[in-house]
Amino acid sequence: MGIEIEQSCVQLSNIAISDTHGENSPYFAGWKAYDENPYHELTNSSGVIQMGLAENQVSFDLVEKYLEVHPEDYNGFRENALFQDYHGLKSFRTAMASFMEQIRGGKATFDSERIVITAGATAANELLTFILANPGDALLVPTPYYPGFDRDLRWRTGVNIVPIHCNRSNNFQITPKSFRSSLQRSRINEHESITVKRSVLEEILDFVTKKNIHLISDEIYSGSVFNSSEFVSIAEILETRRYKDAERVHIVYSLSKDLGLPGFRVGTIYSYNDKVVTTARRMSSFTLISSQTQQFLANMLSDKKFTEKYININRERLKKRYEMIIEGLKSVGIECLKGNAGLFCWMNLSPLLKESTKEGELELWNIVLNELKLNISPGCSCHCDQPGWFRVCFANMSEHTLEVALKRIRNFMANRTGTKKM
Amino acid sequence: MGIEIEQSCVQLSNIAISDTHGENSPYFAGWKAYDENPYHELTNSSGVIQMGLAENQVSFDLVEKYLEVHPEDYNGFRENALFQDYHGLKSFRTAMASFMEQIRGGKATFDSERIVITAGATAANELLTFILANPGDALLVPTPYYPGFDRDLRWRTGVNIVPIHCNRSNNFQITPKSFRSSLQRSRINEHESITVKRSVLEEILDFVTKKNIHLISDEIYSGSVFNSSEFVSIAEILETRRYKDAERVHIVYSLSKDLGLPGFRVGTIYSYNDKVVTTARRMSSFTLISSQTQQFLANMLSDKKFTEKYININRERLKKRYEMIIEGLKSVGIECLKGNAGLFCWMNLSPLLKESTKEGELELWNIVLNELKLNISPGCSCHCDQPGWFRVCFANMSEHTLEVALKRIRNFMANRTGTKKM
Repeated sequence: MGIEIEQSCVQLSNIAISDTHGENSPYFAGWKAYDENPYHELTNSSGVIQMGLAENQVSFDLVEKYLEVHPEDYNGFRENALFQDYHGLKSFRTAMASFMEQIRGGKATFDSERIVITAGATAANELLTFILANPGDALLVPTPYYPGFDRDLRWRTGVNIVPIHCNRSNNFQITPKSFRSSLQRSRINEHESITVKRSVLEEILDFVTKKNIHLISDEIYSGSVFNSSEFVSIAEILETRRYKDAERVHIVYSLSKDLGLPGFRVGTIYSYNDKVVTTARRMSSFTLISSQTQQFLANMLSDKKFTEKYININRERLKKRYEMIIEGLKSVGIECLKGNAGLFCWMNLSPLLKESTKEGELELWNIVLNELKLNISPGCSCHCDQPGWFRVCFANMSEHTLEVALKRIRNFMANRTGTKKM
Repeated sequence: MGIEIEQSCVQLSNIAISDTHGENSPYFAGWKAYDENPYHELTNSSGVIQMGLAENQVSFDLVEKYLEVHPEDYNGFRENALFQDYHGLKSFRTAMASFMEQIRGGKATFDSERIVITAGATAANELLTFILANPGDALLVPTPYYPGFDRDLRWRTGVNIVPIHCNRSNNFQITPKSFRSSLQRSRINEHESITVKRSVLEEILDFVTKKNIHLISDEIYSGSVFNSSEFVSIAEILETRRYKDAERVHIVYSLSKDLGLPGFRVGTIYSYNDKVVTTARRMSSFTLISSQTQQFLANMLSDKKFTEKYININRERLKKRYEMIIEGLKSVGIECLKGNAGLFCWMNLSPLLKESTKEGELELWNIVLNELKLNISPGCSCHCDQPGWFRVCFANMSEHTLEVALKRIRNFMANRTGTKKM
């Protein structure tokens, strides 16, 4: 920092000095390595390729084209700049509810009065945790999970995460059996690249009802499912049950993944519980979305022709990208878990480990990061209990950059095969 | 809500069910009365006039004119929409640092690396509380204070507010004497319409240093001081002391008041403590500003010709408004505290109280709200310990509306004088 100040002994809070934020994980260390030496096709072609960022750039041109045709969507300056109500713009909530219905092919209905706005899913997740759990309570979160959850769910709330271990043995899927550990209040989350089957969701809902616990369904990738028919929202199930036991169900959604707009910080909580809606809205004072951004999105998402086109093309492009990386890895003998959604694949490098431990995994990760110059996320940073799995993002770069990354992996595998059998 | 769901017995957290958020205060009740029957010059001329909202609309035309001339300031869509770094846009932080210097007439320097962005001052205040205090700790806050502080500083943090009572006896000013109650960790805040004098700030700084406690200076009205020379920032004092003991000092700033942009949710923390900067930045993940808004403001605030003109004209207009209301009230025998900054005045109606108690104050407030149809904020909602004072906002409406409000007060006083002597 420019202004140098002697830093003596003034005390900070326990939260401030704790490391529950989880940023000491290799997940963030890999990001740092990328930041210090980022790949660029022309100016730094041997730099680190960022494959640790679940970001969707594949359909960005569609939004840009929309903006070219509708520059007037940025208007209404006076009323927006002054608007500070924590309900959010009515037009924005209406457009969001409708967009969420569209993604689900009209198989679920959303009431704009139940939509609470937050500055990103990060804030939505923390906010729900504050509302549903007391310090010391536990959230059941299936692994592998997003490393940021350690910060989002635990840091300021004082709530614990109890992982539900999903691994090869259950094909990385939640099974009703796997979470029959009883806890007073818990959390189910489906932050995975495989969508959860209807029957499993039905069983989970019955289970949480029986145990009188809450269910949070993280549906931030609902529009990034390659084939729309393969996604079942918890909203759909509640609708067929006529909202029986719905008051314990809460959905988190965001535009960061499906629309590729993480910089706009647009998250929402959709709760079927009236008290949660009221409290979350009040609490959202701490984390509101700029009205400028709400207005722009209200306009864009209200254009049904645009959103329909976007949703379809985006699904196709993500699927194509996914197949490109999966085939590329397969051709050099690397297996990935079969996925049907999302911006990353789950890659199995366990045959390459010197030893099947977390240390073995991190040793290999270091080689991939420092020699291949690819920032991928080791499974341990996602709390996977089976060593050798890695999360590899594929939608935050151009096809060309993905080719470069695959080439580096190909060379690495060729050199290895020369020295050591897989 | 549109979707009706049976709400049975599923439990929420202690925070969710507590009422520490303070929204049951008359401050918010008054807002509700306004929402239900808002004044409109043509369509609802007997409606409630909102004088409970400290919002600056007097210079909005300047921003609008700027936008007409610089429509290109809304650009760079691709890079902004993807940007999600919790450091915030470098260009935005640089522009903010420079704007903060400009407001202080160049008498203090701000380092853009020490600026942490948050979605409004609401978030900045909570974030600092999480970092500086443990649950059960106390913040010393001078009264009368912003009713929202009960939510912002206490609700989710578990921290207590210990009011430092300022009233007529000390001319509603903090005096070093008034906060010599010893507490382990504390907070000083100058959320008033009278700026704090240099000598008082010097003494406060010495006091907190001696006691080894933190000092938060809320400077959100720094650009709304009618005469720039009358405002002394804690930054200025630290600079003359060469940043000795600076690591315990933290400034909260926002564009909601000075630029009249509350809907954009732009707050900042400026800390002289390296660890606080690092932790606050990490914590700001929960409360980031849309990059669309950051980019727009980076452009606008970088135009020094515009900002200089804005700051000067805005000061003049606020001063004019202030004089208009003060004179208007004086002419019917109502006295206000002498102020030199801000968007509201502090009005003394104690001679009108039936009894000099909180109940008496609320009785009069109910008459003003329900008969005069003016939403003003009773002093008790701002934790003022002397009954009969009211906060009256004057910058969130047109001059014409202010005239209507003054006329209603004039009639009320005339009728009273007829029946009862003041």
